[in-house]
Amino acid sequence: MNRKIPQSTVRRLSHYLRSLESFPKSEGTVSSEELAAWGQTTAAQVRKDLSHFGSFGKRGLGYQAGELSKSLRTLLGIDRSWKVALVGAGRIGLALYEYPAFRSRGYDCVAIFDSDPSKIGTAWGDQSICALEVFEEVIKERDVELVILAIPADSAQEVASRAVEAGVNGILNFAPIRLNVPAEVPVEDVNLVIELEALSFQITQRKQDV
Amino acid sequence: MNRKIPQSTVRRLSHYLRSLESFPKSEGTVSSEELAAWGQTTAAQVRKDLSHFGSFGKRGLGYQAGELSKSLRTLLGIDRSWKVALVGAGRIGLALYEYPAFRSRGYDCVAIFDSDPSKIGTAWGDQSICALEVFEEVIKERDVELVILAIPADSAQEVASRAVEAGVNGILNFAPIRLNVPAEVPVEDVNLVIELEALSFQITQRKQDV
Repeated sequence: MNRKIPQSTVRRLSHYLRSLESFPKSEGTVSSEELAAWGQTTAAQVRKDLSHFGSFGKRGLGYQAGELSKSLRTLLGIDRSWKVALVGAGRIGLALYEYPAFRSRGYDCVAIFDSDPSKIGTAWGDQSICALEVFEEVIKERDVELVILAIPADSAQEVASRAVEAGVNGILNFAPIRLNVPAEVPVEDVNLVIELEALSFQITQRKQDV
Repeated sequence: MNRKIPQSTVRRLSHYLRSLESFPKSEGTVSSEELAAWGQTTAAQVRKDLSHFGSFGKRGLGYQAGELSKSLRTLLGIDRSWKVALVGAGRIGLALYEYPAFRSRGYDCVAIFDSDPSKIGTAWGDQSICALEVFEEVIKERDVELVILAIPADSAQEVASRAVEAGVNGILNFAPIRLNVPAEVPVEDVNLVIELEALSFQITQRKQDV
C-alpha cells in the first residue's frame, strides 16, 4: 500500500493534522476547502489525499475535526511514541536534539552516539553520549526503532548498514549521500543543497516561462 | 512548465547530477540503468525524468556523461551562483552556514540577520550579523535572491512577507509553519517532525501490510 501513496500526500497529511490541531472549533466540522487552504492545495486534492485511506467525511457536511485528527494521527503512526537514536553529536545533531516539537510529537531520543572520544560520556540532557563501538548493543538494549544520521557522508553508509543489521525500522538521513539499505527500511533524506537546488530549479523554470 | 514537474523528479535530477559528478568515466557515456541505480529508481523512470526536458540520450548508446551533467546543472539553475541571506543566527543557522557544499554549489551567503541585540555586529566568517531593522535595505543593496529562514514559527511569516516585498525570489523555510506567500515565490519547507512522520507513516503502513 505505502508504495502507491505519493510522498507529497503523506506530507500534506502532516500539514492537515497540524492545522486541525490548531483549529479553534476542534469539536466541530471542517470542510475540504478549509483543509485545502491550510495544506496549500485544492479541495479536490484534499478529498483525493484522504480517499487513499477510506472515506472520513460526509458529502456536504465536511469532516468531524476531532475524528479526522485522530485518524490522521493513526495513519501517520504518531498515536504512539517512537524510540529514536541520534548519531552525530555535532552542530546539526544538537540543533536536532533541541528541536521544538521533537519530543512533544512522541519521538523520544533514547540514545546519542558520536565517534569523537572527547564527546563520549558527556551528557546532553538526560543522555550520556555513547561510543559507536557499542552501537549495536545499545540499539538492541534500548529498542531503538528510528535512527537520525547527522554525520559526514563518508561514515553514513557504514552506520546505516549497522543500524539495519541491528534491527532499526527507519532512517532520517542528513548526510549528503544516498544510502543503500534494504527496501523494507524507509529512508528520508534531508539535504540542504538539494532543497536549494529545488528552489533554484523553480526560479529558473519560471523565468524561462515568462 | 515547473508546475507540472513532480517534486520527486527534481530531487532525482539533483541525485543524478551528484552521481555523474562522482562518475569515474566522466568523459564516457552512462546508461539509464546506471543512473537508475544511483537515483534509487528504475531505468524507465530515469528516461521519463529526463524526457521532461527534451531528449539527451541516444537509444542504445546512453547519455554522454559530461553533456548530461552540464544540462542538469543548467536545468537546476546551478550553472550560476545565487545570493543567499540567512535569517536566524542560532544553532540551526550556524549549522547551515557551515554546511559543507553550501558555498561549493554556488550558494553564496551574502547577509546574515538576527533579532538578538547581543549577536548583531558579531562576525561569522566574513559576514557581520545584521539587525532585522535593516532587512529590506540590505536585501536590496546586496541583491539577495534566496532567503533561508532559520527562525521560530512566530516570526517566520512576518520575515517571509518582508522578504517577498523586498524582491526575494525563493525561500528555504526551516520554521515549522506553512508560509503564506504569493504563488510566484517558491518555498521549500524543511521540517524535522514532518520527515519523522513520513518515516513512521511508512513503517506503520508496512506493518499493516504484512
